[in-house]
Amino acid sequence: MNTALTEIIPEEVINRLIDQAFEEDIGRGDVTTEAIIDEQAQAEATWTARGQGTIAGVTIARQVFIRLDPDIQWSPRVEEGEEVSPDSDILAMRGRVRALLTAERIALNMVQRMSGIATKTRQFVEAVKEFDAQILDTRKTVPGLRLLDKYAVKAGGGQNHRLGLYDMAMIKDNHIIAAGTIEQAVQKVRNRHPELKIEVETTTIRQVEEALSARADIIMLDNMSAAAMRKAVELIKDQAKTEASGNITLERVREIAETGVDYISVGALTHSVDAFDISQNLQQLK
Amino acid sequence: MNTALTEIIPEEVINRLIDQAFEEDIGRGDVTTEAIIDEQAQAEATWTARGQGTIAGVTIARQVFIRLDPDIQWSPRVEEGEEVSPDSDILAMRGRVRALLTAERIALNMVQRMSGIATKTRQFVEAVKEFDAQILDTRKTVPGLRLLDKYAVKAGGGQNHRLGLYDMAMIKDNHIIAAGTIEQAVQKVRNRHPELKIEVETTTIRQVEEALSARADIIMLDNMSAAAMRKAVELIKDQAKTEASGNITLERVREIAETGVDYISVGALTHSVDAFDISQNLQQLK
Repeated sequence: MNTALTEIIPEEVINRLIDQAFEEDIGRGDVTTEAIIDEQAQAEATWTARGQGTIAGVTIARQVFIRLDPDIQWSPRVEEGEEVSPDSDILAMRGRVRALLTAERIALNMVQRMSGIATKTRQFVEAVKEFDAQILDTRKTVPGLRLLDKYAVKAGGGQNHRLGLYDMAMIKDNHIIAAGTIEQAVQKVRNRHPELKIEVETTTIRQVEEALSARADIIMLDNMSAAAMRKAVELIKDQAKTEASGNITLERVREIAETGVDYISVGALTHSVDAFDISQNLQQLK
Repeated sequence: MNTALTEIIPEEVINRLIDQAFEEDIGRGDVTTEAIIDEQAQAEATWTARGQGTIAGVTIARQVFIRLDPDIQWSPRVEEGEEVSPDSDILAMRGRVRALLTAERIALNMVQRMSGIATKTRQFVEAVKEFDAQILDTRKTVPGLRLLDKYAVKAGGGQNHRLGLYDMAMIKDNHIIAAGTIEQAVQKVRNRHPELKIEVETTTIRQVEEALSARADIIMLDNMSAAAMRKAVELIKDQAKTEASGNITLERVREIAETGVDYISVGALTHSVDAFDISQNLQQLK
């Protein structure tokens, strides 16, 4: 993955996130650094990986430091989506010590979350690599971070599901109950949004048949056993794409991929994130 | 904990977070729900815990649903900070079906993160309950969520460390190198901010002695062995507060509390959060 997130996420989204982080973390100022560190003092700093994982978000870290030192010299040592081993360098930078210290936590908070997501995604992707199944994210993100989280999933080798409630239709149990049947639910959405793909959530083979005859584009097999999924995939063949969903764990994901589903969506990629440990070290500080 | 977060977090912070969540999740609209669900249709919905844990953030969920249905009837079944068991009800609400479905994920995303933080905090608090040590959070939060995260830590029985770089001074290794000595570093900060508490990060007993003679308010014992911490606590007595820090795990926290430290700060409370599983179910849907 060669694409920097600052090229694919709107600048105002990134700027707003950084604004908020500065407001809540720095506020009136970094009282300690401002009292002690000379305004003109310069130093070099490196970021070092503390474990094995996949890096994402280094390009946003640069935007954070640049806010405090526009002249910072920036030398990333890895590309977005690259795997690193413990003690390997992630980036080096040279600039004002005040900027390096004051922006450190904000930048690390962002990159550690994003790299945590990329690392977990890569684990799922690796677990199913013998199969055709793609690992997808979900809408289980925290407010404001949707685009960063989804970028990190791609950095880890996953694919993005819909961005929100607006760019794809997803017909769930309550929609089906309200519409009467799957057929009627699909028809209502198709009449209103002929341009959008329609996914139908199913939990039984009976519902899979209904979704098929309603010509759903994607059929979600929700919380089904592997045996039921295999049967559903057999039935659907190439008439629709299939998505396995519901409490997908690293332990279960291989068995699910074996059923032949096209996609496996994993909420935990973004709702339960282990920060990837990175440390910042200063050199040449006088 | 009886305090709703909407009473202690500025209204504009909460509104901004909800604005952003709506923008990224709903955007132009919930295409599925709008095509299928009648605008006037009403239903009752409940939230059910899927595990054992501590609930935080239900009051922000209400603000989310109210955006789409100002007349929603809201019946929380738990107080903020209350422990719940699997299958127990968290809240019930009655209102427009469209609002219940469209706001569901946004509200759950917030409350599941906050309850995940409260649940993990409670585990740490319980592990050290025989001792005087307080569990503290850190600045390892993601942009925009600092106040929510810190509220959730309190709901779990923890205490808040400084909010950011502005409301307390924290003298770390690079500050000490730049100032020359701990004594000089403390003096510089005290001259500039006599109103603020000063914490000094130490990694050796030698540094603890220096921090003591500089009259630091809080002395951080960073990444020390339990034996070194015990020695430091003995040395410091009541001359300063002590804070244990650095890769504190649930396995190690009891041993650390035994050393007699006043505070134990745990980055993982907010940097590595397992979402607490909650499901929303609709009743009386026609």
